[in-house]
Parts: sequence; C-alpha cells; structure tokens
Amino acid sequence: MTYAVAVRLQRGLVFGADTRTNAGIDNVSQFRKLHFWRRIGDRVLVLLTAGNLAVSQSVISIINEQLSPEVPADRPTLMNVSSMYRAARLVGSAVREVRAIDGPSLDADNSVSCILGGQVGDEAPRLFQIYDEGNFIEATDDTPYLQIGEHKYGKPILDRVLHPEMRLGEVAKLILLSFDATLRSNLSVGMPIDLLLYERDTLDVRRVQRIDENNDYYRKLSNQWAKALRAAVASMDEYKD
Amino acid sequence: MTYAVAVRLQRGLVFGADTRTNAGIDNVSQFRKLHFWRRIGDRVLVLLTAGNLAVSQSVISIINEQLSPEVPADRPTLMNVSSMYRAARLVGSAVREVRAIDGPSLDADNSVSCILGGQVGDEAPRLFQIYDEGNFIEATDDTPYLQIGEHKYGKPILDRVLHPEMRLGEVAKLILLSFDATLRSNLSVGMPIDLLLYERDTLDVRRVQRIDENNDYYRKLSNQWAKALRAAVASMDEYKD
Repeated sequence: MTYAVAVRLQRGLVFGADTRTNAGIDNVSQFRKLHFWRRIGDRVLVLLTAGNLAVSQSVISIINEQLSPEVPADRPTLMNVSSMYRAARLVGSAVREVRAIDGPSLDADNSVSCILGGQVGDEAPRLFQIYDEGNFIEATDDTPYLQIGEHKYGKPILDRVLHPEMRLGEVAKLILLSFDATLRSNLSVGMPIDLLLYERDTLDVRRVQRIDENNDYYRKLSNQWAKALRAAVASMDEYKD
Repeated sequence: MTYAVAVRLQRGLVFGADTRTNAGIDNVSQFRKLHFWRRIGDRVLVLLTAGNLAVSQSVISIINEQLSPEVPADRPTLMNVSSMYRAARLVGSAVREVRAIDGPSLDADNSVSCILGGQVGDEAPRLFQIYDEGNFIEATDDTPYLQIGEHKYGKPILDRVLHPEMRLGEVAKLILLSFDATLRSNLSVGMPIDLLLYERDTLDVRRVQRIDENNDYYRKLSNQWAKALRAAVASMDEYKD
C-alpha cells in the first residue's frame, strides 16, 4: 500500500508520498512514488502514484519514453502539452495503455491511481487525480486536497484544518501530521516521506526533500503533536450521563 | 456501513455504536446496533454488530430465540453460560448458523462482524471480536480496544491516547472523539450514537444513552475539539527546508 496526498493552494502546490511497497507483509521494499519533470521558466509537473508497482512503474516508463529525442516532435509529451489538463490526459492514456497490456492478466486488486499537479506557463497551478480507468478529477477550492492509497487515517486532520489560503510551509506541516497519523495506525505505509513544495509562478522545483525517521523537524513535530493531542483530550470535560 | 468500538478497562467496559445503515447512498435508515442482555447481580452482555443488516438481525433473533422459556433449560444460552468465552462461542455459532443458511446466496461483501463484551459472575469483564467465520479474538491490556466497520478514521486518536487505567467517562469522551473524526470524513456512519458504560462488578446496565446531534455534551465536545486541534496545529513550527 501507499499513502500520498497533494494540496492545491493559492500560493502553489504541496505534495507528499511515502516510499513503502509491500507484496504481502513479509516482502517490503522502498520505492520512490513522487516523480517530477520540469523545464525551468516553462513548466513543472509532479506525479504521485499508488497501487500496483508494476503498473505504476510502467506508466512512468511510458511517460519518459515519450520524452526521448528520437520520438517525433509533433507527438504530445509532458514537456510540450499546452496545459495541465492535457498533461492529465496524457497520464490517463499511459494508464490505459498499461491496463490494456497487463490488465487481462491481473485481478481487481492490481489497480493504480495517480495524482498529477503542476504548472504550465501562465496557467494557474492545477491538481488532478487520475483513476485506474484513465479518467480524472480536478481539485478545487471546495476540496483543495487529493489523496491516494491508504487515505482514511490521515483524512480527519486535513478535513478540519486545511484551507486554500494557507502558506506552503503550514500545509507541509499538516501533510506530515496526516502521515504521522497514518504511519502510527497502518503498517503498509512507511518512512521515508518525499515532500515537494511548489511555489506558484516559480516554474522550478526548489523545495524537495526526503524526510526519514531521523529528520529533526519531523521528530519534533511528531512528539509535540502526540503531547498536544493528549493535552487537548485531557482539557475537555469527561463524559457524564 | 457502521462504526462501532468497545474498550476494556480495569474499571469496566465502554461501548459505542452508530445507528446508520445504508444500501447504496440513497437508501439510508436508522437501526440499533448496540444490544444488551442482563440479569442484575449475575451477568451483563453487550453485543455490537456491523456489516450486512439481514445477517446481524438474524444473529440477534437466534440469540433471543434461545432465551425463550419453551427452549429446554439444558441448552446453552447467553443467560446460562458460565463465562464470557462461552458466550462468545454461542454468538460465533449463531453467526455460522446464519452464514450456513444465507451465505450461499450472498457475495463476499455481505459479511458481518460483532463485538461482544460483558461480565459473567465473578469473572473479570471481557471483550471479544467475533468474525464472519464465527471465530473470535479477545482484547487485552496491550490492545484494549476493538473496532468493527468503518474503523480507520477514528483509529489514530485511540492509538495515541487510550490506556487501560483510564476512567469510564474519559474513555467515553475518547470514543465520542473517535466518532467525531469518522462522522466528519465518512457519510456511511451517522448519528445518533448509542453509548454504554459498564462499571466492573455492578452486574447491571446503569449508564446507557443515545446521543444525537442536539446532545449538549457532544456538541460542546465536538466544537471544543475542532478548536483545540486547530490550535494544536497552529502552535507547532511550520515546515522549513
């Protein structure tokens, strides 16, 4: 399993993804699920993947092959499409291509889902969730975040606190708290966490970090949060009939 | 769907269950999922159910029919078994009986799961989770709580705060916070919530309440909790690279 989340803010986009994959509980590995492409000053595209690793790696391979210099320049690729919407269609097509090849041999549990976010030129930053069927939805101010994988444990904190006016650093903090809740309650999601903060109109990736168990900020945050939660619970009147 | 949770404490047991059932999202009803039986001074048994309503209602009917005065007195029933373990076996048998009758006509989604807790005579209070297959596990001090149904949203708060030395009223508060997280993030779990607090060795049900949206304590708790969570998030340093 996986947990990945991305948030669309007025100031930009924030992405987080864990790195654990498991086939059963005794075959656990670490794989990057956060990928990005950029041409500085022109575009930034970030892709998070969850689900069957063979399918999601094939999707990434197809997208990268399209970028090979040997491919005719008039073919659409992540680096030449005119909008994030077109980029999401391209990723959706790659998902469908892999499903067409491998799908008949796979059962229903072998699905994949992706989050694609970024900015192309003058367009505002946009964020999409691409389903196993290759179609997709887009995040809006009403629901500024998208999650894939093991999303339930970390959802309540986002539902309560997140709003699109927040700063990137505030939202990165919130995403790490959402991961902290998930990591404590579910074995299939594991550190390290890849975190990427994209500031609107920079058209570059300047803030990307891998956060492991020994990261000072994460450790402090996790400890403070545990204490703050217990204090918050304790501060409220207990139940009386 | 359903959310139900029960906790085994040194001081007794606390149970909570929502009352929403839905077949699809446009066929929503209210049904009690918390049932109890008692003989004052002798035993208290509390059963929470989740999953297919037809199956869980049949389980309750079988258990109640066993208690009919027309049934020979040497047959085991919830009111004459000598331990909570025997009571759990009885509920497991009822689950298997229903599965044997209805199972072949039902698909895999039509499963049922139960939590059974209570106290029989001098034995300490005990708590069991009974699976669709009729077998069961028992809560211990290491993991003092059991959940059935839509359990993920409300699990992190329990994992962080719960311990077996807590007072019944503290744990009832915690259970309501666990429900609050679930209710905000999942449509298939709905108010009112049935809450039952069993104090060890009372061998009676004295504290059972249905909590709806207008319950003063719940409203205050929910509002205070939202504020406390936001304040806790705000009090922590935001992420910097």
